[in-house]
Amino acid sequence: MKFRYANGVPTSTENATANILKAAADPNVISFGGGLPAPELFPVAEMKAATDKVFDKYGRLVLQYAQTLGYPKLREQITDLMKDRHVDAEVENIGVVTGSQQAIDLVARMMINPGDVVIVEDPSYLAAIDVFNSYGAKLVGVPMDEDGMKTDALAETVKKYTKAKFIYTIPNFQNPTGRTMTEERRKELVRVAKEAGIPIVEDDPYGAIRYAGKKLPPLKHFDKDGGVIYLSSFSKILAPGMRLGWLVADKSFMDHFSLMKQNADLHTDNLTQYIVSQFLLDVDLKKHVKKITDAYEHRANLMLELIDKYFPKNVHHSNPEGGMFIWVEIPGGVDTDELFKTCIKNNVAFVPGSAFFAGDIKPGTFRLNFSNMNDEQIKEGIKRMGKAIAEVVDN
Amino acid sequence: MKFRYANGVPTSTENATANILKAAADPNVISFGGGLPAPELFPVAEMKAATDKVFDKYGRLVLQYAQTLGYPKLREQITDLMKDRHVDAEVENIGVVTGSQQAIDLVARMMINPGDVVIVEDPSYLAAIDVFNSYGAKLVGVPMDEDGMKTDALAETVKKYTKAKFIYTIPNFQNPTGRTMTEERRKELVRVAKEAGIPIVEDDPYGAIRYAGKKLPPLKHFDKDGGVIYLSSFSKILAPGMRLGWLVADKSFMDHFSLMKQNADLHTDNLTQYIVSQFLLDVDLKKHVKKITDAYEHRANLMLELIDKYFPKNVHHSNPEGGMFIWVEIPGGVDTDELFKTCIKNNVAFVPGSAFFAGDIKPGTFRLNFSNMNDEQIKEGIKRMGKAIAEVVDN
Repeated sequence: MKFRYANGVPTSTENATANILKAAADPNVISFGGGLPAPELFPVAEMKAATDKVFDKYGRLVLQYAQTLGYPKLREQITDLMKDRHVDAEVENIGVVTGSQQAIDLVARMMINPGDVVIVEDPSYLAAIDVFNSYGAKLVGVPMDEDGMKTDALAETVKKYTKAKFIYTIPNFQNPTGRTMTEERRKELVRVAKEAGIPIVEDDPYGAIRYAGKKLPPLKHFDKDGGVIYLSSFSKILAPGMRLGWLVADKSFMDHFSLMKQNADLHTDNLTQYIVSQFLLDVDLKKHVKKITDAYEHRANLMLELIDKYFPKNVHHSNPEGGMFIWVEIPGGVDTDELFKTCIKNNVAFVPGSAFFAGDIKPGTFRLNFSNMNDEQIKEGIKRMGKAIAEVVDN
Repeated sequence: MKFRYANGVPTSTENATANILKAAADPNVISFGGGLPAPELFPVAEMKAATDKVFDKYGRLVLQYAQTLGYPKLREQITDLMKDRHVDAEVENIGVVTGSQQAIDLVARMMINPGDVVIVEDPSYLAAIDVFNSYGAKLVGVPMDEDGMKTDALAETVKKYTKAKFIYTIPNFQNPTGRTMTEERRKELVRVAKEAGIPIVEDDPYGAIRYAGKKLPPLKHFDKDGGVIYLSSFSKILAPGMRLGWLVADKSFMDHFSLMKQNADLHTDNLTQYIVSQFLLDVDLKKHVKKITDAYEHRANLMLELIDKYFPKNVHHSNPEGGMFIWVEIPGGVDTDELFKTCIKNNVAFVPGSAFFAGDIKPGTFRLNFSNMNDEQIKEGIKRMGKAIAEVVDN
């Protein structure tokens, strides 16, 4: 049977990213392509111990249907995590989601009618761009520099697109650039958005993974009228396979959100919520996160050193203070989709910049992930990339 | 900030069902309202043992990001479950979802543009109706009798609505009626749909929970051109809190579905998928399901006996051969929303029929759940309902 799909369903099942990840999945390929945490740091033993406790303490309860917005005890623990991030929230402001990807999807679904404008950083997170496009959004990109989204450019953009539905931003160690928005820009962004009456969707999956620089308050901290919807996740601080994230928003928004969440999957895995809640009671999360940030700092610095050594002298790169990504720009307008092919032949992978832009693609750019490969792989991989770049640049 | 929500987001956060469930959540209330399995039959010890094995055998792997369509081993095991249901499927036809509610939501999202017609049984599953409405569907109900959806009426309906996007049906122990579609009707439904070029979404969460009558092949068994999208779930045969369901469809559909699933939550909880896969290896599922069907048969029969004893003589009720629900009709046009209020005063709850109709509400109808209450509660609850019905009918 030939299905008549709805508008917004991609007509092609050829997904550029899927193809890149497939090429990178070859075990001979050293991949800086994905956005995966370091699995050797997953707290497997502690998670197993927490699970045993949960089955013993709660038994049937964790296997039954549960509340749409999540396990109340976990929501309370999330309010404590938020305090640590300088955000005061009550349990009623917290919604547990099936990974923060689900929060991006449901917030988009709640806000976007086909043709609506959504403002994004340019470049931005691929899977968010895919979601916004699937609801028929018209994406408008705001340029960035090393200090994050340019708020003067944003002020112009909201004047032009007064009915934009929301501004999507990743202030900490942005995906794909690894850049962090300064405190001044954060305040200014909240001010501009409020004045324009446009909500902000603040995506903060990486904020806790800071290994350098000064911890900055999220946009939500500066939000006085409920215009900021804050998303975060246990994926980068605990384990992504468990698909556990959360959303923080005003009570009135949460009431609508709850109905959408019910439609989407009734509620998030109850067992997993209990396990993570028990884990947070038993394990020193800060100590665990310190292990992650120490490892990532080491890997990022190693990668940056090797970039300086093996890449052309005039290359630009971001200097992340946390997270998982470095953004590289090779001058001279190199087509990094072509570079990708050369790299794959040399058994090394990354994600070309073209995947991340809502507006014009900036040539010569690409994203490197430093969290998922060990020292040896980073050394060998960057060397291989250097060789491939030299080939392409010489041509 | 005042949010400008998209079309389809309910403008009121007053959800009739939510209110009913809230009223029924009072611990003094005997509730036949929800659709919850019997928690005392959850295999807690076996699930704990399976989880321990998973952590020991697979460690980090289960905590990492994983494939969008699910854990390949589990998908293979699902093809075996499908064989047992007389459906030949390959791994590539199976998608694991975060509860079959997610499959309903994503299939609807893939198919429905605002204004599109969706054909449903009248009455039908509440949370599916909510989903279809949220995408702006125009719902057209097809009447049922004790043999399921009336296929002659369906034939008329598809003649009138030639561009209907799909036909949504629950052939086994339907929610809310508990009725089962006959084999003849199944064949006829597939034939009519195929001739009209309209896909069928076959929702089968309860099919395995059959305690009486003859096991019937699903519509998907009769599907020769991929027009049937089949949904099922581990919620009723194992545990709903783990949010694990699946979808069976043609490869071409799955390719599009995969992109939507990626947008929605990247993939379903990996740990939970491994646990259920291990459980299926270690535990005799048929033996476990037999325990459930024995208990449900007993409870259903007890409830039907008591209905005959305590409800008015001329009451109609369905005679389910499985599942979790009995559908009751009191003659005389009693308003069961009013009856609900009287029942709550008497500390007993159900769901009034009004919640389930896409078209005209059939007065005097309501749904009773028999799976979640024990013998004593069923005895006391039906007695209380009988008293409340007598009050309302006498008035």
